[in-house]
Parts: sequence; structure tokens; C-alpha cells
Amino acid sequence: MTHPDTYILNATSPSRLGTVDVVTRYLREQGCYVADMQTFDDARAGQFFIRAEFRRPQEQAFDEEAFRSGFAGRAADFDMEWRLTDRSRKPNVVILVSKFDHCLNDLLYRYRTGQLAIEIPAIISNHPDLQRLADWHHIPFYHLPVTPETKAEQEAQMWDIIRESEAELVVLARYMQVLSPELCTRLEGWAINIHHSLLPGFKGAMPYHQAYQKGVKLVGATAHYINDDLDEGPIITQGIQPVDHSHYPEDLVAKGRDVECITLARAIQYHIEQRVFMYQGKTVVLGS
Amino acid sequence: MTHPDTYILNATSPSRLGTVDVVTRYLREQGCYVADMQTFDDARAGQFFIRAEFRRPQEQAFDEEAFRSGFAGRAADFDMEWRLTDRSRKPNVVILVSKFDHCLNDLLYRYRTGQLAIEIPAIISNHPDLQRLADWHHIPFYHLPVTPETKAEQEAQMWDIIRESEAELVVLARYMQVLSPELCTRLEGWAINIHHSLLPGFKGAMPYHQAYQKGVKLVGATAHYINDDLDEGPIITQGIQPVDHSHYPEDLVAKGRDVECITLARAIQYHIEQRVFMYQGKTVVLGS
Amino acid sequence: MTHPDTYILNATSPSRLGTVDVVTRYLREQGCYVADMQTFDDARAGQFFIRAEFRRPQEQAFDEEAFRSGFAGRAADFDMEWRLTDRSRKPNVVILVSKFDHCLNDLLYRYRTGQLAIEIPAIISNHPDLQRLADWHHIPFYHLPVTPETKAEQEAQMWDIIRESEAELVVLARYMQVLSPELCTRLEGWAINIHHSLLPGFKGAMPYHQAYQKGVKLVGATAHYINDDLDEGPIITQGIQPVDHSHYPEDLVAKGRDVECITLARAIQYHIEQRVFMYQGKTVVLGS
Amino acid sequence: MTHPDTYILNATSPSRLGTVDVVTRYLREQGCYVADMQTFDDARAGQFFIRAEFRRPQEQAFDEEAFRSGFAGRAADFDMEWRLTDRSRKPNVVILVSKFDHCLNDLLYRYRTGQLAIEIPAIISNHPDLQRLADWHHIPFYHLPVTPETKAEQEAQMWDIIRESEAELVVLARYMQVLSPELCTRLEGWAINIHHSLLPGFKGAMPYHQAYQKGVKLVGATAHYINDDLDEGPIITQGIQPVDHSHYPEDLVAKGRDVECITLARAIQYHIEQRVFMYQGKTVVLGS
Repeated sequence: MTHPDTYILNATSPSRLGTVDVVTRYLREQGCYVADMQTFDDARAGQFFIRAEFRRPQEQAFDEEAFRSGFAGRAADFDMEWRLTDRSRKPNVVILVSKFDHCLNDLLYRYRTGQLAIEIPAIISNHPDLQRLADWHHIPFYHLPVTPETKAEQEAQMWDIIRESEAELVVLARYMQVLSPELCTRLEGWAINIHHSLLPGFKGAMPYHQAYQKGVKLVGATAHYINDDLDEGPIITQGIQPVDHSHYPEDLVAKGRDVECITLARAIQYHIEQRVFMYQGKTVVLGS
Repeated sequence: MTHPDTYILNATSPSRLGTVDVVTRYLREQGCYVADMQTFDDARAGQFFIRAEFRRPQEQAFDEEAFRSGFAGRAADFDMEWRLTDRSRKPNVVILVSKFDHCLNDLLYRYRTGQLAIEIPAIISNHPDLQRLADWHHIPFYHLPVTPETKAEQEAQMWDIIRESEAELVVLARYMQVLSPELCTRLEGWAINIHHSLLPGFKGAMPYHQAYQKGVKLVGATAHYINDDLDEGPIITQGIQPVDHSHYPEDLVAKGRDVECITLARAIQYHIEQRVFMYQGKTVVLGS
Repeated sequence: MTHPDTYILNATSPSRLGTVDVVTRYLREQGCYVADMQTFDDARAGQFFIRAEFRRPQEQAFDEEAFRSGFAGRAADFDMEWRLTDRSRKPNVVILVSKFDHCLNDLLYRYRTGQLAIEIPAIISNHPDLQRLADWHHIPFYHLPVTPETKAEQEAQMWDIIRESEAELVVLARYMQVLSPELCTRLEGWAINIHHSLLPGFKGAMPYHQAYQKGVKLVGATAHYINDDLDEGPIITQGIQPVDHSHYPEDLVAKGRDVECITLARAIQYHIEQRVFMYQGKTVVLGS
Repeated sequence: MTHPDTYILNATSPSRLGTVDVVTRYLREQGCYVADMQTFDDARAGQFFIRAEFRRPQEQAFDEEAFRSGFAGRAADFDMEWRLTDRSRKPNVVILVSKFDHCLNDLLYRYRTGQLAIEIPAIISNHPDLQRLADWHHIPFYHLPVTPETKAEQEAQMWDIIRESEAELVVLARYMQVLSPELCTRLEGWAINIHHSLLPGFKGAMPYHQAYQKGVKLVGATAHYINDDLDEGPIITQGIQPVDHSHYPEDLVAKGRDVECITLARAIQYHIEQRVFMYQGKTVVLGS
């Protein structure tokens, strides 16, 4: 249950005496009531993280810009990176897909039933297959086929759509193309990918078939921010499902799909609730 | 991994602007570094809770008493109840048992292997059976038999041991006697009991046999602070285990024992880590 | 992965030497290959259960009727109740709803995506609200309002629809009317209901609000066959979700909805896979 | 709850019509009552597996040898490998350790409290550290130091102890030496190892530190039969524990220890309950 006038203030800075105080004192001065707050201090990295949900003052107008500029100076004293988010505003999320529909299907179901408080201004695919599913939910679908020769151009089109959509998050919901290093760099920290995670780790093609050969008893999925190494970015969350000997490769794939859906949706939820901080190739997820 | 010079400051007060700030500002003024902090605001009850783990200043001596008296005045302005705990100090825990040994066994194992950072100055029982187990761990064992006629006297002896042990927590590890309302009142908020939790709820004798008759598919346990109604105090944590048709009543009892052990140990852990606040017949557990 | 020519033979009888053999010998004689089999013997009740998935002979036509009549005689010698099911045939399932849509929504999603291999010839409701959801999936929707005066007549209409649909299963997906004892008796063993399960058990109105008052740390749901006591029939499966102090009553209700959806869907899956035997007020669920 | 006169018959053979029947018919002819049975047919590998728990005839003596020789002929017709186990007999288990004590500690706790129905005739270590723990449980402890030069000789001594103990199972409870290919071959199918499993898979030294760098959100463990490739044998069972950003490398290691203990104990339980079949580099685990 979130109060309608709730904002979230996130901040991170080098560990230093007073990092909490600079945030909480400002909130008090501004008449903002702290409803829920978590901090974490990474003692090894010397890095501090804070997430504060607060209710703006009720008796007067709340001037977001004034709040921001007032805080900016104090934050600067602590070399603090920070952002302020209106919790009632639904962020724009652009979804990239190819042919597999399980993750998209699941995300659109959560979107339609209000479980996932996002807007979806665009679905982009390198294949036409999922157009019908997008249409059904009245979401613009962009078919941007790609070949090695047209990759640069296709990514440029993709980028235009992302920018024009004012997207705050890009979700690779089983988008089966490797993004260029340039695009990865542009999307760093605001593009989430999902991929299988198997124990032990299997490299190469047909991982579920390899896993079947080994008789794995668990299949998992990892949701992470993308970076240059597409399947190896900072991990946001991971899921797991038990399997047994009666699972043939296609059953492992099916179980894998289930856990991919759940794990991806959870990662998006954490992201839009402003719980995730990315630093040094990994993440802090506060209050999850 | 806890830093050696870590303290925990817990506080609760009516919800009011500045409750976080009064804590964080004081910590800063005292040169204390906040390593980990959670707050919760119960918007329905209008009650605020905060738990702050902090490291005392390194460059100078830390005067606990000065810290306490300095904070007391400010806390009073907010009608704040609070406590300061040295995280490195192991609290004294007195354990009450009868004949069942599974919870005691489990607690002593965690105690011996250092998983549970407590001292156990006394084990009290109304039966002699578990003396040997206590001896093995070099823990004083008090056999205090009880009859309806001697109950008041027995409880008085029990209370003496608890007081002389300087116990900060009393654990009813399957102690099969109903405590008197007077003793319950004295122990309010610092005595933890464990009992079974079955779905649907079964009242009366032999609950596992009733559960078997209904073919339950889950058995559970609830750890709670005791109050007048012995099995119904504020819940700290609950555990659950799946069962199936192949579990006869004695198997359900065995599964129940497992989940009782785990759930009781977790409740004790939360309590000694100063995570639990009791109010209005229920609990807030921060950072669990 | 199920082989296309797979059948399931279920049987139960009083425990007696030879109960397994009479099944497996017949299957061998008929040239049927046993792909997956589980048995359970309830030593306390003296009742035996078996579920055998087998592949019919490939080289010749498979005469289901001949198979049935051949087995009937042998089964009779063991006072065996049994049923033969073609695994590739989707059973007709009639769904009863009122105003809450979460369970229906979830079931239709699983139905549409093929996760739940059923046909849905009819959705019946005492309210018009969910007509649109049914239409969207092209499923006939019957609005049968009910008052104390019209209850007998409404149930008669309901029964006609169930019968004419050749339903093999009736699902009460949050149908908020108590069925008459007569209808309950008619539906015994083939109608599944879902209701909340809270620890400890709360009786009466607004159970989640009661649970909130107690500060429960788990919310659950129970799927069961209906009988005279609507919320107390034989349990098929139960689910649970952790909650904490930050869950207000409406959050508990929301978590409860999630676990109701998952638990009901799992119960239906077990039922249509012919895994569930009902006896003596409880169930055996083989190979779950 | 196991009946005292219970036996387990396990068998595997190429998939063929009649494989179930040959087992169940024989059990019936011998007057043995099947209490619990599972089969699995690997349709891809064309391999069949069966595990039957049965109660021997009560009214007469049960001649195990006669039972064996009677079944041997029939099993041969199906190229069946099989074994008969008296469920009440505790198998001899030899445990190999080095310096880490968490798995040994856990196993001895389960052994002492009767949760693990085994005898432990010997604990072997290449270090003297765990002698005291063994002594405490009155179990012979063999300190067999090893260097590259003495490895062959040390393994010969180890083998002598294993053989003289009439061990049916060898458990590598964090034994930090690589066994020679010769010893691995001798122990194939009856030696269980435990090792960490991290997502994604990390190769090389200090895996938990690598996992920390990546910010993993799950740590796991795999219990497997050993083969030539020490960390890569057929998987019996796998466990997992959630972790978060607040877990430093040493916390990950600690969580890893917990999951190693639980996972290893479960694997041993499956093995001694005769649930595990090893074939084609993986396992079938029936009725787990």
C-alpha cells in the first residue's frame, strides 16, 4: 500500500561520516515524512547507499524543482549521486523481443492486470511473430529486421524509438541479438536482460541439452543489467526451479522459461521501485 | 561479517516529522558511522520504528553512558522508547524445557558451533530427562518439578534463577507447562515460545492426528512472544514444511519437530540481533 | 514430455497381496508399456493406490472398450475401483465465479497459453461482472443471479449447464455462494474450491484483517474438493507466501490472491493428470 | 514410518515390455506385499528403473538367499541389474575429511540423533585437526598425511580401511585432495562428493570471491558421485540459498557451508534409501 504522495530519494556516495544525516536532515527541513528507509554501507568498497521513501508535506504545494536544487548542493559536498522519483508516475519501458513469447506474454499480463506499474510505449522486434500479441494489448510494435550488414542502421532506428518513447528502462525479453558495444554503453544501467543459469555452468550452444546430459537437479535464470559482455552484466536477481530425472531437455527448457519469466519480472519491479544501485560491476538491491 | 566495534540503536515512537533525523543527527554528532539502517512507519497505527547498526568512533574512547544520557533528552522530545546494544556482547539466555529434546538439542548445537551468539547460564526443566544433554555442554541444569499445588513456588524458583542469571531472554523450548499470568506478565517481550501451526487450524489435543485426518499438505510452526494466552502471543516468525499422504501422524510430528527447531532458532536470532519490536499485540522485524 | 499414445490407469482397493500384480500383469498381457508408475499403501487405513501411465501397443489398434471389459473382471476380484484415461483428451471444466477475477484471470491465461490442458465449455456466475473476460476468450458465460428464494432454481440451471457441458470437473474460482448440500453431494470428488489458509486459523469475517492484527508472517491457500462443509473438504494441495510487518490488510489480501491462483491451478493440474484419489475425507496425490 | 520387515528391491534394465511385471509378479509369488513403488522409464535412453519397498511374508521365515536366487534367473531374461536391501540394516559409511569441519559436524549430529541411519566405522583425514570431534563420537579416526610422493601409498592405506570397514558408501565431506583415477574408478557409484555450485559458474581458485565480485544473489552446492573428473560426476542433488549485497565473500562462504551440509546429508539419505541409480553419467532418484 503506497501513499499517493510518496517520493523516493536514492543516493550513493563514498562512505563518510554524515552520509545518512545529510539526507535525513534535508528531508526533515523540507517537511517530508520518512515512511520507509534502508541504508547499506559496503565496508570493503567504502561505498554508501540509501533509499528513502517519503511523503511530501501535505499542507502546502511541493516544489520538486526547489527540492532538487536545494539538495544538490548538500549532496555535492559528499560526492553523492542521487535521484528523486515520484512513486505514482509510471515509467516508460521499451521491450525488445525476437520470437520467443513467454517473457513478453508474462510481462504484458502483469502490465494489463496492474501488477507492474509501467507504461509500454513500444515493443521492438527483429521478427514479425509477436505483432499480434502486441496489437492485442494496443501497444505499438516495431518490426526491425536485422542482418550483419544492417545492424548499425537497425540499432540506430531502435535507439530513435527508445529516445522518442522517453524510455527510462529497456527490457530484453529474450531478444536474441547481440547488441553492439556502442548501444550497450548507451544503455548501461537502464537495460535489463534475462538468461538461463545452470549449475554447473554450461558454455556454448544448447545449454539445456548439456544440462540434461549431466542430470542437473536445478534450473535457474539470471536477470542483469547489460554491459559489453551480454550475458555477464551486473546481476539484479536470480531464480531457481527444482527439476528431476523425468525432465527431458524440452522439459528443462519449459521449466527454464517459467523461471525466466518470474525472474525478469522481479528484476523490473526492483528497478522501477528504485531499489537497485549498480556499482563496480555488481548491484545493491535495497529493501527487496 | 560484523565489525568489532558495532552497536545497535533501536527506537520506536509515535509517527512524527523528524523521528529519523533525531536519531541520525545524534549519531553524526557523536562521530558514529551508520553501517546499516532500516526504518518502518506503520501508517495505520501511527507508529515509527528504526534500527541502526553503527560503528563507534575509532580515534577516541567511546563512553556508552555519555552516549545514553545524551540521547535520552532528545528521545524524550519524541516520546521515543529506545535501547542501545553492544553487538559483540553475548546475551544471557535461559532455556525452559520438559521432556522433548529436539529444540534444546538444536539450540545447543548452534550454541556450541557459534552460530547462535548467546550465553546459556541455565536450563530449567520440570523433568530430569534432559540433564545429561545439559551436562554434556557444561550448562547448569535445574530440575524443578511442578504440581498444581507447588506451581507458585516452582515459578518463584524459576524466576530466581532467571534473575540471578541476568537473563535477557527466556526461551520456552517445548516447555509443556502453562505459565501463570503473573509470570507471563513479568516475561512480556523477552520470552519466546514455539508451537505448531497447522492449516487449517486445529484446536484441542493431538493436533497432528487431527491434521492427518484432514490430509494436510503443509505443517508449520510459529515462534512468538508469550503473553497471557500462551499459544497466541505476538508472532515473530513462522516456518512451514511440505508433507504428503505418505506422512502418518508420527511423520507429521517429526516434520513438525524439524520446522519447530528452525523457526525457534530464527526467532532467537532476530531477537538477539535487536530486530524485533513488539507493539499492539504484534511485531515489526526490521532487516530480517 | 508425454508420448501421444499415453493412457493412465488409476486404481484403489483394500490392501491385499497381489494388488500391484493384477494391474501390471494385465498391462503386460495387453502389450502396454508402463512408462511411469507410483503406488502407495496406506498401512493404517489398509487401502492401496496405484497410478500407471502406459503407452498402448503401437503395432495394432487399441480397443479401449476391450481393455476396460477385460480389466473389469480382474479388478472386481480385488474390490478395486479404477478408471482409464486417455492422456491426450482434454477434459471439460466448468468454472464458477462471482466478482473476484484473479483466479479466473489466471486460469484463462494458463488455458490460453496451453499450460492447462483443458476445455472450458462454460463459465457460470451469480454476477455479470466477468462476462467481458469470458468473451475475450470466446467462452460461453452464463449469468445466473441468485437469491435465497431462487437458490434451488439457480442451482438446477447450474446443474443443467454442467451436465450439458459434459463437465468432468467443476472449479469454484472464488464463487462466493454456499452450495446446497444436495449439489455438494452430486459434485463430490469432482468439484474443487479454493480458500485462504492462515496461521493460526482465523474464523469468521475478514480473516485477513484478523491476521493483520496478529501480525502473521505467512499467508496461505488451500485447494480442496468440496463437501457438505464448504471450506473443509479433502485437501488437494496448499500454498504459502511469506509476508512481514509492512503488509497492511490489503497487502495481505493481495498476497493471498497470488497464492490462491497458484494453488488452485496446481490442484486442477493434479486432478486432470489423474493424480488425486479421495478417500476417508482426505486425498492421496501420486507423483506430484 | 517404516515397517520393521521392509526390504527394497531396485532394478534397472533396457526398456522392454514386461519389465515391471517381472518384478511385481515375483514379489507376489513370494508373498511379499508391495508398500511403495516407483518406476521411471527413460524414453530417450531406452532404460527402465524400478524401486519397490515391500514387506516380507509375516507368517513364515524369509529366506533372503532363496529370494535372491529365485529372482536372479528372471532378472537375467531382462538383462536386469538389481539389488535387494534390508531396510533395517544400517550401512557402513566411511567419511573422508581434511580440515573443514562443517560437513562432518553436521553428519555426526544427524548420526548421533538417529536422523541418518548409518554406521560410521572410520573417519579418514589427511590432517589431524578433526580427531577430537571423531573421538567425541567414539568413532575411529585415521590420520593419513599425504604428499605427492606418498599419495599412492596413502590411497592404498585408505583403501584398506574402506575395505576392512566393509563400507558400502564413502563420503568426501570436504576432503581437499584429488583422488587418483584408479581410486575414483574403484569407488565409482559408491562415493559421494560435495562441492559449491555458483551461478554463473566460476572456474579456478577462490570461487566465492569471484562470485562476490559478480554480486551473485544465490549460492548453491552439488552432491555427486565421484568419477575421474572430481567435481563433475553424476549429480545426485543440488541445494541453493539466497544471498544479497550485504554478504561479503566470507559470508558467501558461510552460506555456502550451510547449503553444502544440507545438500550432502540429503544425497547420503537418498543413497542409503536406495533411491539413486547411476547411468550414462547422470542419476535417476526415485521417490525423492
